[in-house]
This record gives sequence, C-alpha cells and structure tokens, in this order.
Amino acid sequence: MNELRIEQMRKAMEKERYDAIVCRLPENVLFLSGYWPLCGWVYLVFPLEGEPVCIVPDTEEKEALSELWAARCTSYQFGVHYAGNQEEEIRKALKEIKEGKSWKRIGYEGNFESIAPAWNAAELYIPAAGTLSILNDVFGEENLIDATEFINKERACKTPYEIEKIKVANEISNMGLRVFAEKVQIGVAAETAVAYRPMEITTRRRLGPSQIALLELAVVVDGYWCDRTRARIAGKPTDAQNKVYQVVKQAQEKAISRIAPGVKASEADEAARCLIREAGYEKEFVHITGHGLGFRYHEPLPTIAPGNDLLFEAGMVHTVEPGIYFPALGGLRIEDNILVTENGSEVLGPFTKELC
Amino acid sequence: MNELRIEQMRKAMEKERYDAIVCRLPENVLFLSGYWPLCGWVYLVFPLEGEPVCIVPDTEEKEALSELWAARCTSYQFGVHYAGNQEEEIRKALKEIKEGKSWKRIGYEGNFESIAPAWNAAELYIPAAGTLSILNDVFGEENLIDATEFINKERACKTPYEIEKIKVANEISNMGLRVFAEKVQIGVAAETAVAYRPMEITTRRRLGPSQIALLELAVVVDGYWCDRTRARIAGKPTDAQNKVYQVVKQAQEKAISRIAPGVKASEADEAARCLIREAGYEKEFVHITGHGLGFRYHEPLPTIAPGNDLLFEAGMVHTVEPGIYFPALGGLRIEDNILVTENGSEVLGPFTKELC
Repeated sequence: MNELRIEQMRKAMEKERYDAIVCRLPENVLFLSGYWPLCGWVYLVFPLEGEPVCIVPDTEEKEALSELWAARCTSYQFGVHYAGNQEEEIRKALKEIKEGKSWKRIGYEGNFESIAPAWNAAELYIPAAGTLSILNDVFGEENLIDATEFINKERACKTPYEIEKIKVANEISNMGLRVFAEKVQIGVAAETAVAYRPMEITTRRRLGPSQIALLELAVVVDGYWCDRTRARIAGKPTDAQNKVYQVVKQAQEKAISRIAPGVKASEADEAARCLIREAGYEKEFVHITGHGLGFRYHEPLPTIAPGNDLLFEAGMVHTVEPGIYFPALGGLRIEDNILVTENGSEVLGPFTKELC
Repeated sequence: MNELRIEQMRKAMEKERYDAIVCRLPENVLFLSGYWPLCGWVYLVFPLEGEPVCIVPDTEEKEALSELWAARCTSYQFGVHYAGNQEEEIRKALKEIKEGKSWKRIGYEGNFESIAPAWNAAELYIPAAGTLSILNDVFGEENLIDATEFINKERACKTPYEIEKIKVANEISNMGLRVFAEKVQIGVAAETAVAYRPMEITTRRRLGPSQIALLELAVVVDGYWCDRTRARIAGKPTDAQNKVYQVVKQAQEKAISRIAPGVKASEADEAARCLIREAGYEKEFVHITGHGLGFRYHEPLPTIAPGNDLLFEAGMVHTVEPGIYFPALGGLRIEDNILVTENGSEVLGPFTKELC
C-alpha cells in the first residue's frame, strides 16, 4: 500500500486548500487509489478528510475491491439492458458522497489534453461536457477548480511504491529489447529511422547491410509506464555509424551523471548537448533530452530541455534520450528511464547498449 | 475518395446552419478528411463553403498529404527543441483560416466522452480546457456550438467508401477468429466466461474439458473498426451447451433477418429476445442485442435495445450479438457486424459459427 502518496497528497491539498479532488482519468484514479480502471467509467472522490470513495460499474467491482488501497467502493449496475441511466447513477452516487459536506474547493481534471489509456485500451472514456455538467450540478460551478496543474505537480515525485512499479515495467521492457537485439538481421522487415519523428511507423521494408533499426518501446504494467529506445545495426556498422553511436552513448551517460537533486534540468540537457556539439553534430540532435513519465508515457514534469530552470528532486522519474539523425547514415538514439535519488540518479532496469 | 461523405455533410451543415466544424479527435478528422492522425495533434476545419484545412505537425505532414481527400494541409514545426509553442502555432493557424470569414456558428467536439484511439495508441491527445480556450479566442465563445450530437448523427449512415473500409476490418478480423478456433484445446490458457461483463480479462487459467473460451475481438484497420465475438469449446460440448448455443445462433440469425430500413431497432432486439425467452433463457440474456460501430468500436447510433424506436436506415452498420450466460455452463455469445442495405441487411465478413 502506498501510504506515503495519500499522506503527501493530503498535505498538498491542505496547503492549496482543496476540500476534495474528483478524478475520472484512469491514470489519476490509479495515482490516488491504487486501482487502475478497466475502462474509464470510474470516478474517484479523494477528500482532504475522511475516506476516499471509488464509484465503479458493478462489472469491475471485484477488481476494484481487490486493488483499492484504502477507499470505500460504491457500484452501480452496468452493461445490462435493464440498468439505469449511467449519468444519473453517477450523479446520485456523487450526491450521496457530497451530502453533509461543506466543500468549497473541489479540484477536477479540467485540462488533461494528453492521457494514458485505461487497462483495456480499445476505446477511451474521457471527461468532457457531460462530466462537467454532473460535477457542476453536484458540487456547484463556483466550487470547481481545474486541478490539472496541481495533480501534475504532485505526480512529479514518485513514492518508493510507485518507483518499484515503474522499475517492474522497465524490467519487463528488457524482454522486448532483448528480442529486438536478436531479431535485427539483414533481410528482416523493420523501420529504418532516417530523421527524427516523435512517432515512428513500422514498415515492411527489409533491412540492408549496415542499416539501422530503431525500437521505441512503450510498456505499461499495472498502469505504470516505461519508455525505452535502442538502436541495432543489421550486419556490421560503418565506421561513421560507430563514431556517431559512441557520441550518443557518451552524451546519454554524461547527462545521467549530471542528474541530482537541486541541479537544473537544463544542465542535464546541456551536458548531453555540449558533448554532441563538440563532436560536430549539434544540428542533428534536434529534440530535447528527456521528459517525465510513470503514470503516463509522457508526463510534463520534469522536462529535460534547453532553458528549463526546474530543479531535479529526489523521486522524479524521467527519460534521458539523446539522439543524432542523418538521412544517409540513419538515426541513432538511446533512451533509458532515470530515477533521481537522494545523491544522484539510478537507471531503472539497465540494459546493454551494443549496436550489434 | 469519399465524395458522398463531403456532399452529405455539407447538406446537413446547411440544414443545421453550421458555418464550419472544427475537429480534433482522430475519428472525426478521419470521418471528414480521410486522414487518420498518427496521434491527436491534428485539427481539421471543415467549412460549409470552401476547402477544408488540416493543421498537422510537420512530422506527419507526409502521411497527411498522401491521405487527405480534398483538404489543404498546413503544418507547424513539432518535436524539435527549438519549435515554437504548440498552442500558439495552432492558434495562429486557426486565425489565418478564420480571417475574412463571417462565421457565426462553429461546431466543436464538446461532449465526446467515449473516443477511439489514434493510429498510435500509446497515449491520447484529447480536447479539454486548453482546446476550448483556443477555439473561444479564435472564433468567439458566442459562436461555438457543441456539435457532438450532430456529428454522431451524421456518422450513423456509412457511405459505400466507409462500408468497404469496415468490411476490410471484418475480413482481417477473420484471421484472428480462425487462429482462435484452431487454438482452443483442453489445456490451453484462456479466459472462461461465466457471466456477462462488458470487458473480459484474459487469464492464464487452463481450459478443462467442455469449458468455453470466448473471444471478443476488436480490430481497427486504417481507423475503421470491427467488433466480433466467437465462442469455442475445449474438447466436446455438453448437450446443455449445444442446446444453449443453438438458441444463441438462432436468436442472432433471427435478429439479422428482421433488419431492414424502416424497421424499429427494438424489433430486431425483440426478435432475438423473444426466441431466447421462449427457450427459457430470458434472464440469462442480460445485455442489449447490438450497437453501432465503424469510426469507433462502439457508436451511439443505432442501439439495438428494448424500447428503442429508432428506425434502421440503409448504410447503418451495427453489431448483432445475443448471448446467454450461466455460471456453471459458461457464457456463449455470437457477434457479427451488420450493414443495413436497401432491402434488408448484409453480414460483413461472414465467419463460421461452429462451437468446436
């Protein structure tokens, strides 16, 4: 159980004078309750005082009850043709929770424009006008506060419980990295990265000698994410590829070595960027050095980018992923997930960085 | 190219006096432009008069240009550390599109609470307060109209182009159904459905003799969805299972035979439900008979449920999926995707319904 999270959240809510936080996004329900919803039909009411309440469809009550750390669970009939109107059921459940409380500041998820899928990702259920109308009705429009920034800030530093979960995702991702390393051969179908794109598309193009295969691997385990990248060469690398790859590797390791509480995020970025600049590839390292992650594939805190004065804090988890991209040579990137520790940093689920 | 869609949409917009529709959700961008966004950072402005404009990150401009039917494409720099602020870039692009237009009614996606993932589903980008703030700024709050219901209604009847795409998804799903049929054997790990749940969880439990494996299969191809279910028995079915399965099969076929333009959705539901009732399993058929689909795994129109007086129209695509669920016996369901034709209906990508 993640007691520290509940304690920290309550302290932060007290400081910002929140009486309650109401969540619907699976990533935030998980964050504050331990339950990762099967779809997105779950509401969590997390009050400053008293027990949190999780409103779930009865079809996932069993899972909710076995996963919730310390929340009461209330369910509504769902999925059967004689079930009541879902919105009305939720409105009723929320009104019951609200009864007798004099809450004046209720935080909701007003501006999450980037979200993680639920346990079952075929379709997503998100808060839009319908949700806001229910919340307005139950809590009063004048009492609702967009808590997006507040929640993101509280999510930035992970507790030991959460770190352990993210580590598991990283260790499982190593299974994928290992298979990738074995499979990359001349003649194998794979995407060859020639320029940086935030989303690569896998093609059926077959790898020729000295062509680079780049694996960008997202793995989610129990709602906790990791984000890894490895590059491998089909056959033998050219001298130029070897040279560039060594620069990427050194830049990544240099950035990691700079990370510690109190250090500016921009300093870690500059550590990687400076090394790449001195090697003559400044223009080919087009993207930022890293981003936060854990409850989602990308989280806004911390962002390891030029000019970002944010200070690292122990418990932050983020990527370090410098890359160099040449149309002729191919693109090379190494990405690992880093935990900021009391004295420096730790690579989660380390994995070899050989090019072939 | 889906010219009919553009024509129909313009007619509907004229009737409802929309000057333009602004979309962000990948499913609606696809619906009106032919381009299925890689992530969710694409805006489509679809005006009543003049050329639609698609605002895309430059990292997916190549794909957008090759897929867009008849929209102008405008891109902004994305993903590089020296890119401008994304919100500002989009605001600027929208302002340029708006310039000189006297639009007074602009539809936006205010209440899509259920959404399909984008091409790349690791993370979703959805419209929330940030998007609404941009739209308010560009178009004026007083001119914005929540077009969710309007868009859903226009999506209900599919054009021949769209039907062809959904058919391809169904045909590809048959590959999965075939493998499933081959793999279900005594000793194989699979979930055994004992009660109806809208989201089943696959377990590592091994199938014993006469146990039922139920496959609920969502397949998305180029942004078009299908939704199939087949049940298979490990070893030999019991007489009771055989009997129940025949009822499910007959109920499904009877419902399908009732479907035609002008028929009430509730009549197709009742056709299946009546047959199941007469066989003595009324209480075990707990859910509705079907739902719309195509641009998403579930669409609100048409819903094949008791009491729904909605009339079928040619071009509608929906599931027909009666099921009977007994804790001891196991759950049995058959689900296919049906197109309402001029004279009746057509099963998309038919597949055998043998139980073993």
